[in-house]
Amino acid sequence: MPQKVTAFAPATVGNVAVGFDILGFALDTIGDTVTLHRTEQRGVEISDIRGVVTDLPRGADENTATVGLVQFLADFGLPFGLRVEIDKGIPLGSGMGGSAASAVAAIVAANAFVGGKLLRTEILSYALLGESVASGDVHGDNVTPSLYGGLTLTRSLEPIDVVQIPVPDEICCVLVHPEHRIDTRNARQVIPKDLPLSTFVQQSANLAGFLSGCFMGDTELIRNSLQDLLIEPHRAPLIPGFSQVRQAALSNGALGCSISGAGPSVFAWVKNQADAEAVRDAMRAAFAGASVESSAWISSLNCPGASIVEEG
Amino acid sequence: MPQKVTAFAPATVGNVAVGFDILGFALDTIGDTVTLHRTEQRGVEISDIRGVVTDLPRGADENTATVGLVQFLADFGLPFGLRVEIDKGIPLGSGMGGSAASAVAAIVAANAFVGGKLLRTEILSYALLGESVASGDVHGDNVTPSLYGGLTLTRSLEPIDVVQIPVPDEICCVLVHPEHRIDTRNARQVIPKDLPLSTFVQQSANLAGFLSGCFMGDTELIRNSLQDLLIEPHRAPLIPGFSQVRQAALSNGALGCSISGAGPSVFAWVKNQADAEAVRDAMRAAFAGASVESSAWISSLNCPGASIVEEG
Repeated sequence: MPQKVTAFAPATVGNVAVGFDILGFALDTIGDTVTLHRTEQRGVEISDIRGVVTDLPRGADENTATVGLVQFLADFGLPFGLRVEIDKGIPLGSGMGGSAASAVAAIVAANAFVGGKLLRTEILSYALLGESVASGDVHGDNVTPSLYGGLTLTRSLEPIDVVQIPVPDEICCVLVHPEHRIDTRNARQVIPKDLPLSTFVQQSANLAGFLSGCFMGDTELIRNSLQDLLIEPHRAPLIPGFSQVRQAALSNGALGCSISGAGPSVFAWVKNQADAEAVRDAMRAAFAGASVESSAWISSLNCPGASIVEEG
Repeated sequence: MPQKVTAFAPATVGNVAVGFDILGFALDTIGDTVTLHRTEQRGVEISDIRGVVTDLPRGADENTATVGLVQFLADFGLPFGLRVEIDKGIPLGSGMGGSAASAVAAIVAANAFVGGKLLRTEILSYALLGESVASGDVHGDNVTPSLYGGLTLTRSLEPIDVVQIPVPDEICCVLVHPEHRIDTRNARQVIPKDLPLSTFVQQSANLAGFLSGCFMGDTELIRNSLQDLLIEPHRAPLIPGFSQVRQAALSNGALGCSISGAGPSVFAWVKNQADAEAVRDAMRAAFAGASVESSAWISSLNCPGASIVEEG
């Protein structure tokens, strides 16, 4: 049995314009890292939170990284405790799945203490416990891709039913994170509880077109489908400069551009690496035009999910 | 140039449980046939309506088969008229796309009078003119599969964007038509204009799972996804015995069972031909238990769209 295990879980983009609460994809250039140390003392203790976020709850029942661990230790009746170090690579409240990544990394690391016997769906269940603490709601659009990698459909959580959606290899993602924080709960509150059927129908058509485009490798079908008629109109006003940023992305050849998760980060899909830099620069310039500082990443779309990076 | 052209267009199942107004598939065992005779007298005249329905509007501007023809003749400035015979194989108000099939057959036949130069999307546009007369609304979930065959996604009508969705070869459809007429407009009125976002998210998950199952050839994913949470609860009360019929289908191994279009016909997808007969018999027995007579068909799912059957 290891004494110490470190796991990494990637940042993710949830919703993906057409799949509110069900679609998400992993990024390859940013994420959270969690290290677990086996301790003689029972229970879960957070000893360090470092990186781009440090102001997080320290109680094991409150932190997204540890809530699942507490349940995990209880379920397996393990005769030891865990000391937890969290390295946050994902900005807080960025819409990049930070709480999900910490939760996933923790359980992926914990799995090494039981000989890796957890099924992937079991890891997902434990990680969802942590995510629910953060967002006040349980859905898999960030946890699932952070664990599985690539573009995922979380068809159902009870029972867990996850589908990996193929994406044409050359397509990549530009993600721009403006220095403007949105609380996930607030971002949920701006969405009406009821929405017009006619909007649902159009959004369904785009979801169906988008998925078909992914399966068929049809970039133009993806381009024609990758737009959010349902949620984006309600959340866009929360993000200063959003409409200009989106327009900048599309004018520079992006296949689509929408809000990453609950925002304020904005993602664009682009046909290839060559387009990605122009789109990134145009999006950042548009944010700057709205007096908003930003950071940006370019990522492939078929990148791996969470994994153990060190064990000893 | 031909003197007389006959075309057949198949009956269709619209909505397909998870794709309200956007998904539809063609049946191979039933449809409408339209014969066009070139006449010296200009204009469009209906000379005969026969088959399972005869009580249809006779005015060229009112009948779904001829509305598109009138526009077609005007657009091409053709120096002749058309006399139209309609052979209805599809019961009226059955939810099997009868108005769409007549409209499609008419335009497919008309295309032969201009040397077949119409694009498929142009045929679709003309046929939609007829469909709009019948349903008071324009959507492509019946017209598209009647023209293209197989399972189709009508992602957009402006511009026309149609995607052919593959279906595993062995899957087939059972369609049961109860002797109980529903008016399409009434079936639309029972659906609320606004629906809960939470229901839409679940329905989207099923739509995405269903399409993924079709592309991946994953029968169990299709089974888990093929259920309508959005529309069926509102329309089911219009169909006597529906819940028993659906339960009978599922108990006998159907992958899913829902309302065909606006109803009252009910369709089921089954894994293979061997299951189809048992499911059909169970569904008909359930209708009989609700004192409703019914007819039934078993059809493959990858069957052809409309075509010319005679030209002379």
